[in-house]
Amino acid sequence: MKRNITFLLVAALAGQLCMAQSGKVVEDFKPSSVNQDGKAYPQVNSEGRVRAQISAPEAKKVQLDIGGVKYDLVKDDKGVWTGESGPQDEGFHYYQLNVDGASVPDPGSLYFYGASRWGSGIEIPAKDQDFYALKKVPHGQIREVTYFSRVNSTIRRCFVYTPADYDKDPEKRYPVLYLQHGGGENETGWWSQGKAGLIVDNLIAEGKAKPFIIVMDNGTWAMPAPPRNNAPQGERPAGPWPPKGWFEGFQRTLLGDIIPMIDSNFRTLADTKNRAMAGLSMGGMQTREITLANPNKFSYVGIFSGGVISPEDIKTNPVFKENVKLVFVSFGSRELENRNPNFGKGIDPKNVTEELKQTGMNAHFYTSPLTAHEWQTWRRSLYQFAPLLFKK
Amino acid sequence: MKRNITFLLVAALAGQLCMAQSGKVVEDFKPSSVNQDGKAYPQVNSEGRVRAQISAPEAKKVQLDIGGVKYDLVKDDKGVWTGESGPQDEGFHYYQLNVDGASVPDPGSLYFYGASRWGSGIEIPAKDQDFYALKKVPHGQIREVTYFSRVNSTIRRCFVYTPADYDKDPEKRYPVLYLQHGGGENETGWWSQGKAGLIVDNLIAEGKAKPFIIVMDNGTWAMPAPPRNNAPQGERPAGPWPPKGWFEGFQRTLLGDIIPMIDSNFRTLADTKNRAMAGLSMGGMQTREITLANPNKFSYVGIFSGGVISPEDIKTNPVFKENVKLVFVSFGSRELENRNPNFGKGIDPKNVTEELKQTGMNAHFYTSPLTAHEWQTWRRSLYQFAPLLFKK
Repeated sequence: MKRNITFLLVAALAGQLCMAQSGKVVEDFKPSSVNQDGKAYPQVNSEGRVRAQISAPEAKKVQLDIGGVKYDLVKDDKGVWTGESGPQDEGFHYYQLNVDGASVPDPGSLYFYGASRWGSGIEIPAKDQDFYALKKVPHGQIREVTYFSRVNSTIRRCFVYTPADYDKDPEKRYPVLYLQHGGGENETGWWSQGKAGLIVDNLIAEGKAKPFIIVMDNGTWAMPAPPRNNAPQGERPAGPWPPKGWFEGFQRTLLGDIIPMIDSNFRTLADTKNRAMAGLSMGGMQTREITLANPNKFSYVGIFSGGVISPEDIKTNPVFKENVKLVFVSFGSRELENRNPNFGKGIDPKNVTEELKQTGMNAHFYTSPLTAHEWQTWRRSLYQFAPLLFKK
Repeated sequence: MKRNITFLLVAALAGQLCMAQSGKVVEDFKPSSVNQDGKAYPQVNSEGRVRAQISAPEAKKVQLDIGGVKYDLVKDDKGVWTGESGPQDEGFHYYQLNVDGASVPDPGSLYFYGASRWGSGIEIPAKDQDFYALKKVPHGQIREVTYFSRVNSTIRRCFVYTPADYDKDPEKRYPVLYLQHGGGENETGWWSQGKAGLIVDNLIAEGKAKPFIIVMDNGTWAMPAPPRNNAPQGERPAGPWPPKGWFEGFQRTLLGDIIPMIDSNFRTLADTKNRAMAGLSMGGMQTREITLANPNKFSYVGIFSGGVISPEDIKTNPVFKENVKLVFVSFGSRELENRNPNFGKGIDPKNVTEELKQTGMNAHFYTSPLTAHEWQTWRRSLYQFAPLLFKK
């Protein structure tokens, strides 16, 4: 059996290589769903290839830069460059174009904040895209909230999702999920490319999740200068990562400013059992550190591609054991295959989560099929996590 | 005296030419206030020049394209291109970079929707920028509202500004301003580059305007296919402009969907005397056409760089005369100098507005000093218009 699988894998890989070499691509490209209004490119085909196009009559070399690979575009006699990538995983990806050495956004796409810049993004239609589709159901609002942070002595902003029925009954109060973006992203990530509003709108409309408020703030601004800035470009400093204290600034801001501001400006259920925190990647690490350090503040914990909570972590933390009704941990299957360094060398996060469950905690583990450290993993994680919230 | 002024003008022009030719620019450049976090370029100096910079080691030619002029950038030995524009008017401008013939957004700036694309924008600090500054005052929310449009059989979105005290008293109701963007712009323009939320926050905090709701929807999506698409690129079709019926689609959407949706989802004062409409450029033309055709729906009318209402227009419109408490018309001074075709050949909009006033209407005319058909004109127009609203 093992031999058969190996054979199939080799055959599949060989087939893919042949396809790439012969340049044969399936000609069913359609404009990406996140193109700017009226723009025909970029396009995506049924294999998940991205075809980019840009007019650059005087350029010598134009490339599509996606998924860590640069693909050459080819110029026609009108100076228009066109070319496509290899197949990409389903879901959302950041990308850019390279014009004679200049890395620039594609003028055809909408722009998203990630990789520490506003730049191009593309959607590879996913077989399960229905759960974040824009449907004719009641929709919540995404509100830009501007507030003064005493902790940081500055004016900050966050985005708050209020469920569709929020303005119907002025007496009703709601539980709150504090939902954090990843490193190099910001407070726009979850409602824009993350589609958090649509995911929760759809779940609520189907009766699969209780209505709740989502608060999306910026976990980067409030951080102290990261120690790894002292390490050479692209390298992490020696020692455990994230370094101790990395998230103290955001913790102070969250507890000192954000939660009190939300509780005084929105109709929240302002107690521990109605407060959740979750995040992706860096936001998951922040969730882990902040909920472990403040077990009297949060009852639901979601860590998406950002580490695990082990029995060891809570051995001397009776308040966490008592208060926390759910520990939800997730990864993309490709992260698990590749042993993503975010969850430590040699640790199997599924096993660790199972061990946590054995201690009596309500621990859930979710694996997103065939996705990596990317937004499709996190959309699916929220979709799995939200129905488990505020049930107790 | 006239000779002296001519002499001064010639001397000033000659000085400017010399400066441009010798390349002497004042070296007090600072990063633009609408740069992406941490980006050093683009920069602006005290003359209002824009200095752009981009790494493009293999490029042959890189240009900064702003205000209808292309300025060459110069390459250093590391392949980084740098160069500056001539002095720009105070306020916000769209711009782009040109890399070997490819027109692309500047990777250093934030992106704004205008000229029918998401692209770069820059702020030239204005002497009066305090009125739209982000201050430590109570701030309203900008809410993204998703709703089903029966008129268009589609899901649409708009943005709604609710004033800072909106969530304090669940009994209080508010008047509403429907505020429209210009051609090639969308529902994000007024709260993003237009800074409508900050302008009204500041006016309310100073007690200069009554709190009101602002609804910013998309006036383009709902339009019928514009007749000028049949005219050659960049040319208008023959006959009066805008062509009759141009705005019927948006009128149906506004009256049939948007206003009823707002009145049933927000705590509005849902009567004529508490409803205003205003817009810039195309949005001003829409305001003019829609309020003249529906004088029982709106009591306050603001037309910014989008035409005038003449005594002739309302001669046979007693309901308009009766209901409309304010007609506010504005232009940038450079539009008046250049006889912007948007208000017709040979018409002096200030005189026409004065004539309207003579008929007994409460008509106001405002000229924005030293600005053209640009956002600084419209920010100032809103700042002048808002204090006059809902006073009767």
